[in-house]
Amino acid sequence: MQRAAPAPALGDAVAHQTETFAEGLRLDCGTLLRPLKVAYRTYGRLNESRSNAILICHALTGDQYVAERHPVTGKPGWWEIMVGPGRPIDTNRFFVICANVLGGCMGSSGPPSEMTDAEGRPQGRPWGTAFPPVTIRDMVRAQAMLIERLGIPKLFSVIGGSMGGMQVLEWAALFPGRVFSAIPIATAAWHSAQNIAFHEIGRQAIHADPNFHGGEYWRHGTIPARGLAVARMTAHITYLSEQALARKFGRRLRTGPMLTFDNDLFEVESYLQHQGSTFVQRFDANSYLTITRAMDFFDLAAEHGGSLGEAFRATPVRFCVISFSSDWLFPTAMSREIVRALNAAAANVSFVEITSDKGHDAFLLDEPDLFRTVSGFLKGAAERWSRG
Amino acid sequence: MQRAAPAPALGDAVAHQTETFAEGLRLDCGTLLRPLKVAYRTYGRLNESRSNAILICHALTGDQYVAERHPVTGKPGWWEIMVGPGRPIDTNRFFVICANVLGGCMGSSGPPSEMTDAEGRPQGRPWGTAFPPVTIRDMVRAQAMLIERLGIPKLFSVIGGSMGGMQVLEWAALFPGRVFSAIPIATAAWHSAQNIAFHEIGRQAIHADPNFHGGEYWRHGTIPARGLAVARMTAHITYLSEQALARKFGRRLRTGPMLTFDNDLFEVESYLQHQGSTFVQRFDANSYLTITRAMDFFDLAAEHGGSLGEAFRATPVRFCVISFSSDWLFPTAMSREIVRALNAAAANVSFVEITSDKGHDAFLLDEPDLFRTVSGFLKGAAERWSRG
Repeated sequence: MQRAAPAPALGDAVAHQTETFAEGLRLDCGTLLRPLKVAYRTYGRLNESRSNAILICHALTGDQYVAERHPVTGKPGWWEIMVGPGRPIDTNRFFVICANVLGGCMGSSGPPSEMTDAEGRPQGRPWGTAFPPVTIRDMVRAQAMLIERLGIPKLFSVIGGSMGGMQVLEWAALFPGRVFSAIPIATAAWHSAQNIAFHEIGRQAIHADPNFHGGEYWRHGTIPARGLAVARMTAHITYLSEQALARKFGRRLRTGPMLTFDNDLFEVESYLQHQGSTFVQRFDANSYLTITRAMDFFDLAAEHGGSLGEAFRATPVRFCVISFSSDWLFPTAMSREIVRALNAAAANVSFVEITSDKGHDAFLLDEPDLFRTVSGFLKGAAERWSRG
Repeated sequence: MQRAAPAPALGDAVAHQTETFAEGLRLDCGTLLRPLKVAYRTYGRLNESRSNAILICHALTGDQYVAERHPVTGKPGWWEIMVGPGRPIDTNRFFVICANVLGGCMGSSGPPSEMTDAEGRPQGRPWGTAFPPVTIRDMVRAQAMLIERLGIPKLFSVIGGSMGGMQVLEWAALFPGRVFSAIPIATAAWHSAQNIAFHEIGRQAIHADPNFHGGEYWRHGTIPARGLAVARMTAHITYLSEQALARKFGRRLRTGPMLTFDNDLFEVESYLQHQGSTFVQRFDANSYLTITRAMDFFDLAAEHGGSLGEAFRATPVRFCVISFSSDWLFPTAMSREIVRALNAAAANVSFVEITSDKGHDAFLLDEPDLFRTVSGFLKGAAERWSRG
């Protein structure tokens, strides 16, 4: 029953494309993180007028490898179905950028990256649990520094699902003059009690793993693989609808006779165990704790005196809000709240609820209605932008 | 962050009221469990005609202490709001019986009870992981042996919620001549893929706890408290609706400044941690594994050639099926499936969906509509029974 912990194979063993900001970033918690490193990938070409840049914001366990082979797992990029030549976000036409989030584990400043002191001097050890807490707003500020460094005065669009959608909303609220359009997908303006509770399960599972060593696992040459796997399994269930789970796995016994205590008796179980165990190869436990906390902290209305409408007051940004009918983690009602606030702010907003039985995961999957909606909205926005 | 494991305080340290069946019980898996022990409690008095007996079937983590102080925790019985003098299940009128389920840890044969060999000879050690897998049908057969021993030819009613409701359905299917009426509450005729997946999270968390020792924790004087707590926390979230979670805890920060990594930053988290940690004082991890498996195996249609209607063919039992509008673990649609099958079998069935925002937990809580429904149905059934 006990699985050996796999050898550490974290992102910091890979050379990522990175920008370093010596001046650092003052975080919402007050800490000056110095220097700031932002790892990122780009696809396509920035045009002469610098008007074709799209920023993709990744979700909790995503990273900057959107549309190419992942350097750790060797798998295709997480959104190749959406981003690439001739895809809805067409890299023949757009210059696409995606940055690893602040607090992540694929090259941006985060728990596995080297700790620095207040003067920015390296400390010869990873941050680990000493990495300061970050917010979605901190993540967006770090991305904004990257976008400025890349010489892009205004993004044509900011697009993301789930936690990526939270960043999209924060971009529009924080930098309305630097974003022409925004596509928040399967997201919410604040994290629900239920979602916080599911995150807490994952965090508790990580803390309960003896290989976690209070977060100092890097000192012990271990990784809390079991705890991280349970966290991932929990999250994964919340990403799927009952229909999607049942269709994929049903209640069919996988092999052998009924009524044994084999761990993988039901197919859904072996699937989840597989999901959990591949995940630990590429993700850092302290990053998982840091990023889930950032999602839990997120409350865009609270950042604006309790009014979500205030967050978007007089916004010039054009929005396309997208939800999925079977998403129970970020249900359509959450998207409607965003749309209501945007309407109250007299914003230019389209809202599409896509009928799908794939649950929250739908934003990553083959959903023709999603592709049509995104490409159609981008086309219309491009016409509007070129008309001035 | 690390909590010390609490001292073992399992049910087998408590003297329970128990019946022993020397002949044992042949389980669905083929094993003869011998002897069979069934721990139980009764409330009220059996009348002369033995016509006022009600069997309560408890849920996953319930036990036989329905309407009295719990011998381990000292807390009130788990259904005192429903069962007692003048309550909807009125012990002034009815003789109420509740047995600890087979596989449980409060005195019935289960993983913490003493292991026996094929001749029933005690082995001087607990069963632990060697306890055979059991089914909901096995649980019901054990209860039926108890009911026979108590000299009750026919139960006036069998009542239970969640896994208790599965037992109610199984009672009606297995012993239609020994049950006059049945009230399955917040339950299903088969366990969904999503519910199996949530159980798998809990089992994985238990397996991941180093104090689990592959299920041999009783040899080491430990209990897998952290893993069991994570399992309980996961289950608990599924018992509450988003509304219930939000109303009780919201997103309010419990104390202190925002943006720290305190484990109980959000109230929902400290609540869940509390729920998890009190649970481990009274529940055995191997029992948890055994009973969740029994629920996952449950598929009443599969037991009857794939037809749920066949399970109830020509049943004389009178049913009152109850669901709650905000229960997403055992949603109303699951109850409707039961009702459809009962209708197809031309059974006598009432169906009530109770509007509640308390989620699955509603069946244990102060829900006046539930009380009215149960007491009204029992009153009508009693009139019908006395008319003959």
